[in-house]
Amino acid sequence: MTVRLDTLPNGLRVVTEDMPALQSAAIGLWIDAGGRHERLEQNGIAHFLEHMAFKGTARRSALQIAEEIEDVGGYINAYTSREMTAYYARVLQQDVALALDILGDIVLNPAFASDEIEVERGVILQEIGQSLDTPDDIIFDWLQEAAYPSQAMGRTILGPAERVSSFQRDDLSRFVAENYGPGQMILSAAGAVDHDEIMRQAEALFGHLQPVSQIAIEPARFAGGERREIKSLEQVHMALAFESPGYRDEDIYTAQIFASAMGGGMSSRLFQELREKRGLCYTVFAQAGAYADTGMTTIYAGTSEADIRSLAEVTASELARAGRDISEQEVARARAQMKAGLLMGLESPSSRAERLARLVSIWNRVPALEETVARVDAVSRDAVAAFARNLAGGELAVAFYGQAADAPSRADLQERLVA
Amino acid sequence: MTVRLDTLPNGLRVVTEDMPALQSAAIGLWIDAGGRHERLEQNGIAHFLEHMAFKGTARRSALQIAEEIEDVGGYINAYTSREMTAYYARVLQQDVALALDILGDIVLNPAFASDEIEVERGVILQEIGQSLDTPDDIIFDWLQEAAYPSQAMGRTILGPAERVSSFQRDDLSRFVAENYGPGQMILSAAGAVDHDEIMRQAEALFGHLQPVSQIAIEPARFAGGERREIKSLEQVHMALAFESPGYRDEDIYTAQIFASAMGGGMSSRLFQELREKRGLCYTVFAQAGAYADTGMTTIYAGTSEADIRSLAEVTASELARAGRDISEQEVARARAQMKAGLLMGLESPSSRAERLARLVSIWNRVPALEETVARVDAVSRDAVAAFARNLAGGELAVAFYGQAADAPSRADLQERLVA
Repeated sequence: MTVRLDTLPNGLRVVTEDMPALQSAAIGLWIDAGGRHERLEQNGIAHFLEHMAFKGTARRSALQIAEEIEDVGGYINAYTSREMTAYYARVLQQDVALALDILGDIVLNPAFASDEIEVERGVILQEIGQSLDTPDDIIFDWLQEAAYPSQAMGRTILGPAERVSSFQRDDLSRFVAENYGPGQMILSAAGAVDHDEIMRQAEALFGHLQPVSQIAIEPARFAGGERREIKSLEQVHMALAFESPGYRDEDIYTAQIFASAMGGGMSSRLFQELREKRGLCYTVFAQAGAYADTGMTTIYAGTSEADIRSLAEVTASELARAGRDISEQEVARARAQMKAGLLMGLESPSSRAERLARLVSIWNRVPALEETVARVDAVSRDAVAAFARNLAGGELAVAFYGQAADAPSRADLQERLVA
Repeated sequence: MTVRLDTLPNGLRVVTEDMPALQSAAIGLWIDAGGRHERLEQNGIAHFLEHMAFKGTARRSALQIAEEIEDVGGYINAYTSREMTAYYARVLQQDVALALDILGDIVLNPAFASDEIEVERGVILQEIGQSLDTPDDIIFDWLQEAAYPSQAMGRTILGPAERVSSFQRDDLSRFVAENYGPGQMILSAAGAVDHDEIMRQAEALFGHLQPVSQIAIEPARFAGGERREIKSLEQVHMALAFESPGYRDEDIYTAQIFASAMGGGMSSRLFQELREKRGLCYTVFAQAGAYADTGMTTIYAGTSEADIRSLAEVTASELARAGRDISEQEVARARAQMKAGLLMGLESPSSRAERLARLVSIWNRVPALEETVARVDAVSRDAVAAFARNLAGGELAVAFYGQAADAPSRADLQERLVA
């Protein structure tokens, strides 16, 4: 398998990896335009724009977009995150050019017809409703808000309903003009793909784009904080967050190994302590999320009203304990999980295309697998223990949702974290 | 890639497919033991047993099970459905034998320690709570109950909390003795696997098992019905169900193509009509589920309180209309989607292992891909239209959850379905 990376004269990067055993491919555009690129009054526009891309272009109606890709058995989708918007497709080998043509069309030529804007507004308001009906989804929005108060980083991707209700065509066009430049775009493909053909087509589709200055994002400031939403639910949902390394930080793998050892699998400390020993929860996990300039390690678990205090306190105590006694074996296991996960992920064209885009976005190159493996292997037990102590000593963001009156306060938890 | 299928003298079937490009594998045991194999007083035991498999064996503690598989970067999991329990692992090539050893151990030698039963009871009660907090999950339990009242097929997999609270060691042992025979087990593996080695190991691990007579499951009788749960939610969630073909029925692919054309992608009728034209919902989909003796085509969508009547009525009208005017192009597109989906799915070892197990369970052989493709290609527009008319003329099961006072009655919807 060969990775190839080229840059068009206007700055658009094209990265591909041929996987000779496959008869299908994943292809997409990853664009440096997400929630963090929105001004306050734009909150939700990146995501609204992502929706509008599918609602018709100069050449295709919304129905034609859907039909063209689905006529050949492919599918097309998109997502918006805090730092990126991605548009991607999965198709059979012979349909890669079609997929790229459609992706280019919907990203570059959205029609923004006013009737379609009105319809899509309704869809997004329903999406907001659906998110509010999913406790283990919405709680992460509240956690983010508590962690980064009054900052672009703390705002939701979907945006508040009031803003979504007001966006117009000009708001969309402006966000595109500010953010959708070729220097902000990475075209990534993996599977049964031909790099030279994709380059030729990329040149034809995107070669005319004029560079756009990258909007400076407001540096994130993890403040910590608390959000407690009382509602009559079956479970009390809990989410915790701590400041942790960004993508480019030396110790990003230390953070990931820590998260894995704490809540990455069945052998992890929180799974063992909360679920296996105490039967307090069904779902518990920890993750080390990363952004350009910072990161956030998050923990989630849900339990009954009677047990929320105990769940939260044990979680905090386990985090404190990890700083003292995390073992060589636990760190070795987390390393093995990361490396195997990496290898298995590479066997899927979708996750491979996504990984290529992320690596190019972070490093402007694709580090060899061995390089990543060496960095994972270099993480020591002592580094993880030191990381854990530092994390537990930092500010905490916490969100509770449900019958949460008995949940401990943030101050209580902070105390336990350093006890 | 080569599929190989062998049967041990005691009836346990072993099916594998080597995928030479991969360095990892998926391996698992699929057992004919699910919710339909439970008597009323056992409801929830198949799932409880699935949980207890991970709670220690004669040779391994719960922690050891987790550590052994995660030490090598693999993972292990399980699920229970109405007709099956599956235990499966994902590991690197060199760890396939370890994964199979652990799978065999947890399935054949669970310890059922009484303290572990008590802890796991708590975990499952939390799982029930989590499910109740997820409207687009729990509504399908209610739909199933409405469709198959007072039948094993209509009961939930998790079981009611009262029963889960009462299960003891003997209940678990009895369900194992009744259902976990070698004739009920399929060992399936795909990826970097060696069939002969797996056969040898399977013989050593499972060769001693004595056959168990298969429990006769109560034939399912789709009665249809209604469930309306009023709750203060953001959305009103709607799920509909219709009787449709079982796994072995001639027209199972007709049902799947119908579901795909109605709600399988962005170009599907319900997506176009409900979301793209009217902006009524964010999520809408249709699926053709199948069981041994019957099947159930389901439709889900969620909208606001003000729009639930309209959402439900338009859905019913679209189902009625499909019987009249579904087009050659729509059927051709659904065929293309099914075939491409099949090919892409085969590129993942997990979905391939699962598919092999299902095919062996249904047909006791693995039909060539071309055979499946030919059956998909044989589905005509007229057959889909006739199927749609028949479906719409049959009994309806419907569930609403949320501020659903304004949702139409089942009788109203049945009328629209044949209008």
